Amino acid sequence: MKILKTLSICAISASFLFASNSLITKSKENGFKAIPADKTELLKLIDDEGNPLTKEKIELGKKLYFDPRVSKSGIISCNTCHNLGLGGADGVSAAVGHKWTANPHHLNSPTVYNSVFFKSQFWDGRSPHLADQAKGPIQAGPEMAALPTLVEKRITSMPDYIKEFRAAYGKNAKIDFDLISSTIALFEKTLVTPAPFDDYLNGDKKALNDAQKKGLNTFIDKGCASCHNGIAVGGTMQPFELAAKYKFASIGDFKGNDKGMVKTPTLRNITETAPYFHNGAIWSLNEAIKEMGSVQLGITITDIEANEIKDFLTSLKGRKPVITYPQLPESTIDTPKPDFN
Amino acid sequence: MKILKTLSICAISASFLFASNSLITKSKENGFKAIPADKTELLKLIDDEGNPLTKEKIELGKKLYFDPRVSKSGIISCNTCHNLGLGGADGVSAAVGHKWTANPHHLNSPTVYNSVFFKSQFWDGRSPHLADQAKGPIQAGPEMAALPTLVEKRITSMPDYIKEFRAAYGKNAKIDFDLISSTIALFEKTLVTPAPFDDYLNGDKKALNDAQKKGLNTFIDKGCASCHNGIAVGGTMQPFELAAKYKFASIGDFKGNDKGMVKTPTLRNITETAPYFHNGAIWSLNEAIKEMGSVQLGITITDIEANEIKDFLTSLKGRKPVITYPQLPESTIDTPKPDFN
Repeated sequence: MKILKTLSICAISASFLFASNSLITKSKENGFKAIPADKTELLKLIDDEGNPLTKEKIELGKKLYFDPRVSKSGIISCNTCHNLGLGGADGVSAAVGHKWTANPHHLNSPTVYNSVFFKSQFWDGRSPHLADQAKGPIQAGPEMAALPTLVEKRITSMPDYIKEFRAAYGKNAKIDFDLISSTIALFEKTLVTPAPFDDYLNGDKKALNDAQKKGLNTFIDKGCASCHNGIAVGGTMQPFELAAKYKFASIGDFKGNDKGMVKTPTLRNITETAPYFHNGAIWSLNEAIKEMGSVQLGITITDIEANEIKDFLTSLKGRKPVITYPQLPESTIDTPKPDFN
Repeated sequence: MKILKTLSICAISASFLFASNSLITKSKENGFKAIPADKTELLKLIDDEGNPLTKEKIELGKKLYFDPRVSKSGIISCNTCHNLGLGGADGVSAAVGHKWTANPHHLNSPTVYNSVFFKSQFWDGRSPHLADQAKGPIQAGPEMAALPTLVEKRITSMPDYIKEFRAAYGKNAKIDFDLISSTIALFEKTLVTPAPFDDYLNGDKKALNDAQKKGLNTFIDKGCASCHNGIAVGGTMQPFELAAKYKFASIGDFKGNDKGMVKTPTLRNITETAPYFHNGAIWSLNEAIKEMGSVQLGITITDIEANEIKDFLTSLKGRKPVITYPQLPESTIDTPKPDFN
């Protein structure tokens, strides 16, 4: 009896092991990619030969990211809408910026975490990379509302910023809007959050619990991985409303790019970044999962299946980089004043 | 000749030493107190037997301090107006909060750093301590505009917050507005910034350079230390416009408390917290120094003297506590939604 029991336990373990192996294989075959556990390998993915990451640039980029003086009013920073403590987003339906203005298209702030892995930036994918993206919200009237010349004047009015730009880029660095934006982007590139799901894909079979594995299987079988794949578990442009009309399509006027394509949001850290969809109209993750089934896949996802998928999604909650809140350079008498109009 | 030179150097050193010693004595006689270098001694000053500081409470208080969901809109946190990267203030004349509303009395956000040492809180000193103070801006319509019940519902809708409150205060902790506010205050109590001036008072004669020492002497001789003294270098209630009318008195309607008394702002980190005065009408520190001479002391402070005093004030720029930006608990479907109205 005892031998039988032992054998039986061994059999279960073996089958479990096999199942895990095949699920990892299935995941990879369906386009999932792990964030590399190896830092050098990760660096290869995110680093740009033209403007390589250095400690000085990252630290400076962090300061600019947290500095509200990059906005016209002086009270809105990148972190206001892409809050690194709130999954890299703001937790409101439509972003609210300068003069308390909601995004005129009722667009939801996407997370900044892992955005380095997106094929393009913004909901309509109009921006090819983060250095270009960063220029948008800083200037946009309903966001930070700052003219490039204002940003340049503010930053170059502070000797400590000038010192740091020179330390990062050399004595002759031209501190202009391009360099300021691209430095912010360099910091953003480092905002990568490896999750249990990466550990699992990288071979740690115990990184996912049984419910998460079951959910992963359901996620793939239902077809969700046809768009939510790759290292970003999203981040590519896809046609929207493939199967049916989105039930909250009337909120805001966003219809994708000129071909009706919409950027697939990453599902990394998705449990932290409600509300969902481009117009932030759905607050429940289960409801969002079911709606996606209907809108994109033309299927009914049951409550049970939605719960399973949600279980899988919890395995995408990543380990956030430890961010020391920066001490920002002192303003000077020459720093252009806050402007609330 | 060589001997003479050596003797002469000794004499200079000795006189320098004596001058330093006597200036430290003079400083203490004029009411300055150092932030204790010894942590146990510092703890004695800021700790409260009724609600002692613990790691769990401080960490939880930090989360609440940085959490914009404490506000009605969900996008304004304590750190918005008391930005720990900007000297603990916001760098704008009058605080701007909910619905982009400026403070109706045109009051400037005071720094949170070292506020534990203030005898009372707010510009009119109406609040006896930080735990009481924290309740004000959270509820104030033009600031965070949140009803206590809303704050309670938001916080208690997040299991991770409940867990942390229990870890900090025990299983039966009643997570109400009072406890939330006083926990924020516990974090604020730790925001103490020892500066070169403290090192100097604590005996390190080289902590101040000659210009700063000269400025300290001028500061005392001109009478500035009659209000700006103690460990906070300010923080007590004083009659305002003792000698003359403040030149920007017409901006805003603030006239102090019912006795015309106004809280003397701390001068710690003052180089980081322009603009100055209760209505943030003066952007230049030199101008503020001269105006104080006229308004409070009835004297003319020359440009040279103002520069000297400013040199001293640079020695009050303190070493900020290293703050790891917190990862905030996830909202749930029960978390009351952001409200921008």
